[in-house]
Amino acid sequence: MAHRRASVLLLRARHVLRSSRHAAVPVSTRPISASQSIFPHVPASSSHFYSSTASGQSSFSIRSHLCGELSSSLVGQVVTLCGWVQYLRQDLFVILRDFSGLVQVLIPQDESQRELKDAFCGLLVESVIKVKGRVRLRPEGQKNTNMSTGEIEVCAESLEVLNTCRKLPFEIKDFVKKSEALRMQYRYLDLRSSQMQYNLRLRSRLVMKMREYLCNVHGFVDVETPTLFKRTPGGAKEFVVPSGEPGMFFSLPQSPQQFKQLLMVAGLDRYFQLARCYRDEGSKPDRQPEFTQVDIEMSFVDAAGIMALIEGLLQYSWPEDKGTISTPFACLTYEEAMKDYGVDKPDTRFGMKLVDVSETFQHTQIEFIRDAIVQPGGCVQAICVPDGAKHLKGKDMEFLKQAAKTQFNQEVDCMLVRAEGSIKSPLGRLIPDTTRLQLLLKMRANAGDLLLIAAGAQERVRPLLGKLRLQCAELLEGRGVPVRDPAVFHFLWVVDFPLFLPKEDEPEQLESAHHPFTAPIPEDAHLLYTQPHKVRGQHYDLVLNGCEVGGGSIRIHNAAQQLYVLENILKEDPSLLSHLLEALDSGAPPHGGIALGLDRLVSIIVGASSIRDVIAFPKSFRGHDLMSHAPSLLPEEELRPYHISVLWPSAKNGQGEKS
Amino acid sequence: MAHRRASVLLLRARHVLRSSRHAAVPVSTRPISASQSIFPHVPASSSHFYSSTASGQSSFSIRSHLCGELSSSLVGQVVTLCGWVQYLRQDLFVILRDFSGLVQVLIPQDESQRELKDAFCGLLVESVIKVKGRVRLRPEGQKNTNMSTGEIEVCAESLEVLNTCRKLPFEIKDFVKKSEALRMQYRYLDLRSSQMQYNLRLRSRLVMKMREYLCNVHGFVDVETPTLFKRTPGGAKEFVVPSGEPGMFFSLPQSPQQFKQLLMVAGLDRYFQLARCYRDEGSKPDRQPEFTQVDIEMSFVDAAGIMALIEGLLQYSWPEDKGTISTPFACLTYEEAMKDYGVDKPDTRFGMKLVDVSETFQHTQIEFIRDAIVQPGGCVQAICVPDGAKHLKGKDMEFLKQAAKTQFNQEVDCMLVRAEGSIKSPLGRLIPDTTRLQLLLKMRANAGDLLLIAAGAQERVRPLLGKLRLQCAELLEGRGVPVRDPAVFHFLWVVDFPLFLPKEDEPEQLESAHHPFTAPIPEDAHLLYTQPHKVRGQHYDLVLNGCEVGGGSIRIHNAAQQLYVLENILKEDPSLLSHLLEALDSGAPPHGGIALGLDRLVSIIVGASSIRDVIAFPKSFRGHDLMSHAPSLLPEEELRPYHISVLWPSAKNGQGEKS
Repeated sequence: MAHRRASVLLLRARHVLRSSRHAAVPVSTRPISASQSIFPHVPASSSHFYSSTASGQSSFSIRSHLCGELSSSLVGQVVTLCGWVQYLRQDLFVILRDFSGLVQVLIPQDESQRELKDAFCGLLVESVIKVKGRVRLRPEGQKNTNMSTGEIEVCAESLEVLNTCRKLPFEIKDFVKKSEALRMQYRYLDLRSSQMQYNLRLRSRLVMKMREYLCNVHGFVDVETPTLFKRTPGGAKEFVVPSGEPGMFFSLPQSPQQFKQLLMVAGLDRYFQLARCYRDEGSKPDRQPEFTQVDIEMSFVDAAGIMALIEGLLQYSWPEDKGTISTPFACLTYEEAMKDYGVDKPDTRFGMKLVDVSETFQHTQIEFIRDAIVQPGGCVQAICVPDGAKHLKGKDMEFLKQAAKTQFNQEVDCMLVRAEGSIKSPLGRLIPDTTRLQLLLKMRANAGDLLLIAAGAQERVRPLLGKLRLQCAELLEGRGVPVRDPAVFHFLWVVDFPLFLPKEDEPEQLESAHHPFTAPIPEDAHLLYTQPHKVRGQHYDLVLNGCEVGGGSIRIHNAAQQLYVLENILKEDPSLLSHLLEALDSGAPPHGGIALGLDRLVSIIVGASSIRDVIAFPKSFRGHDLMSHAPSLLPEEELRPYHISVLWPSAKNGQGEKS
Repeated sequence: MAHRRASVLLLRARHVLRSSRHAAVPVSTRPISASQSIFPHVPASSSHFYSSTASGQSSFSIRSHLCGELSSSLVGQVVTLCGWVQYLRQDLFVILRDFSGLVQVLIPQDESQRELKDAFCGLLVESVIKVKGRVRLRPEGQKNTNMSTGEIEVCAESLEVLNTCRKLPFEIKDFVKKSEALRMQYRYLDLRSSQMQYNLRLRSRLVMKMREYLCNVHGFVDVETPTLFKRTPGGAKEFVVPSGEPGMFFSLPQSPQQFKQLLMVAGLDRYFQLARCYRDEGSKPDRQPEFTQVDIEMSFVDAAGIMALIEGLLQYSWPEDKGTISTPFACLTYEEAMKDYGVDKPDTRFGMKLVDVSETFQHTQIEFIRDAIVQPGGCVQAICVPDGAKHLKGKDMEFLKQAAKTQFNQEVDCMLVRAEGSIKSPLGRLIPDTTRLQLLLKMRANAGDLLLIAAGAQERVRPLLGKLRLQCAELLEGRGVPVRDPAVFHFLWVVDFPLFLPKEDEPEQLESAHHPFTAPIPEDAHLLYTQPHKVRGQHYDLVLNGCEVGGGSIRIHNAAQQLYVLENILKEDPSLLSHLLEALDSGAPPHGGIALGLDRLVSIIVGASSIRDVIAFPKSFRGHDLMSHAPSLLPEEELRPYHISVLWPSAKNGQGEKS
């Protein structure tokens, strides 16, 4: 693996220039025994040379093996290991750790090696050492089957302490619980945990496989696009970056949307990028101001093409230890998703679908239900929570009713289905037997189930029950009833979204459901000019276990259509996008693409509760870097080159005089 | 390649959810002939399905082949092509282009296909079309050996115009010269040129190979680090990003230096990242404010290990069409480089080395030379420009002298070596024959050569002659004399840099030659405490054809040593780096790394004169995005969320009152 210096000199002699690589000196700091060097015939101050054809995880390194890769197949071999002192046991063993695992190192007990023994016994936990020793089988009865290297141990022959460690704020042991703030402040210690190592390494491998699939299998071109860009019209969530010219600002874009489309106009044909994106959501907690998306765009493609590409991509790159995923993924229209699940990103790992029971209650005497039904768009809907009556407590029902009240300003009725088919509910006595039997039949309800019933406008009842469905799943899981299998991955496409939605604060005005570049479904295109609210877009969302992990669309490639959408439907100033409109007019091919949210995808795959657990150095819940303390105050003179000054809140009217 | 819709439905029927992929509609806009669809039995509004096991550059696409891949092996086959109309010829041919090349499409001349012919003949240049047709051999005598598809042509059977093209500001032809400003404004057109397509695609492939080498061959982990970070102490070139908290700023880092080191402390062991870096060089022309580096860090490694890794990396990823590079690379110490080439990044593709001729002039009568020699550190040095006297003109010599004067405030003497060994120079008559012969011998000068001689302090004479050496090469090449082979790639390591340099404006004070984290060479480490200016660092620069394309070092991993360097040598406030110092004290392994400047590396490989030619959307020479007009003015209300206001220059003293 490692050649000797002599051969370097011979090789270099053939060159015009004389080699003088004596910068390359081993990193030793505290040699302990006479035999500590792995190159015993080379003076300590000299260099050693590494073969450039080496490979593996110890290539170019001063170690010969990783701790975790030692096994009985290496018995008898001398190995050099580098790592951290996990702990010492009875002055007999040192447990050494690197990212690959733990290994037991036997401390020599012979009096002739007193100095070496003392050095070992003086080691502090988490110090960094280099150990040379011979691998041997552990004596019978001492094997540890809980440890991947538990069959063997390393008899130490030399020790070099590469660095010592001060007292740490917490122990590097997986079972030690630390507060989030402490983990963030000492992120470099937190990352030593096997879970964080696993998460970051899985992320790296996943991304590598994605790149292989896109570049090597399908001829995509990895193109980097700028992050110092022009402010997008209405880009309220974009960070601004002052330039050296007074009053002139760059902006950090939320996605490379414009660039990827321009690359298609440029004939790049197939583009992808692991793109850093920025979104300033200021006060919103638990949002990362920077995140990464797998950004993809293709020319001469339709929606089915992009969807098949993504199915292939995920199948190809799926981590081996997470099972396999089958393709094609299931697919629902937006309307179907809302109807069955009350949400456009349904978790399809479990049932409890929404059922419309308006007909059942057609002739009801219950006033509030009758009132709801007669309204235009009014309905009665229900979900059936299997075994809900058995497992959920009174306070759970109270919680669900409260949630409906506070989040949706809606009543919800909880009906417990009894063994004999009767119903326990405040409304129970108002429901005649025929209605009750019809309801139980329609809901396929069994004894012990819980029914949640709501009445009102469809666009309010659906999201309400969609939300309660998820909350019921959570409550049941809290009571130990398995509902959503965390080891199962349900991918789902949602398509046929409306292209435009009424603005929340100005409902007679339309805004893009996703973005203004999404093309209409061809058979709806004529409606653009007459009934734009009825137009469906060629948009597709990718949902995994109830989370949106990607979204994309076929784009408008016709300049006139794009101009019409911007000017006449969205009432935006098209001059701000004149470069894009000009580009569409310059021979733009039909094109479409998608962006996958990498952080979210990885966090679902590894089962992390927050995307912070799959990002090496995330911002805290409140958007701060707790390790380096960013953002931070800057002295006025460091702002001067950018021609800005701080407007302190107390001086807001004074226009920054206090700054 | 493309299956029919029917099979999709069968596949989907097995799923829980019903498929409804009707979003997937072909992108047709103007069907021309009855047979225009590539799926003739499927109604135009229906969808087609792509196999997820497809591969290649036309997978998931509405085309069957690329223009450039057609050859005589496909004769007789019906193909579907998509691309841009390069030009029409005599109403007989359309030349169709995609990124892969050009192909000739034969327009049907039969009267029964009048409509189709008219449609072809009405095509505008750069319009986007889909053509179906049969491949056939061109008739004898009509083959075009200058065209990769020149043996065949495609007999068109149908045409679909996917988009038309307005009149463009310039033609998409490689020989059409455009101004830089026009290229930047219409970058999406400029990128259609075969040179820009080549550059971006080579860059993508190079990076992919690098990733394979690092991830798959050597177990590196691709880790993304934040770009919204804390201001580095003294980070005058860092862009600032205001946060939503008054007075609090993030900063866009110049490199992930701190993060990569922290990842080593975290036990990540081997990290790499294609890192976006930011540097605000404001007024400096031709600097990109954002650029990309191949950022690498390893634990348990020495300088030789990193250097061998990089040699292997470049060898593995080197583009096939650029020949091979041999390893190990040549290596010079900083002192050797300065002595021989007068610069720390020598272009070793040619000679003209600096020669010290102080001894030759030891007893000279020439006053200014004698004065120079007797000063401490004074010397006389020369370079010999082969055939310089033959090719360079009087005005060239004048240019060289002028350059010496204005850039270095130094005299330089140009001596033309004549056939008979005499010298033509203003100093000629002051140089005795013995001196002249000694000089010619020492310089190995032949008749027709040019000698450039300068006298003065060594630290001024070396850089002067180093600069003139490059200018002579340029002048000679301007006269048609080949000096530097552009097809040759000379990699060179430069090592043993001084760790500290005197500050320019405060020479008794030291600053880091590279950065404060570079470790001293072990045998010099004791000098830190006594003669820090004599300490050499474990730094290595990678030079390619006279350009620095990378640099790195073994880092200080000892907290006490790092603190001493910051506090006692650099006189910096160590509290600003307290998180790093704490990390080094928490079991930091020995580690080192390197960063390669990707933009520069690629530009040298493809022979581009500017890194702008290897970046998809670069900023202009003056740092602007000429396409979207960034940076741009922002209205005051968009700055308010960031609690900043503009300090207009005229109102500087008024502290932003005008804003």
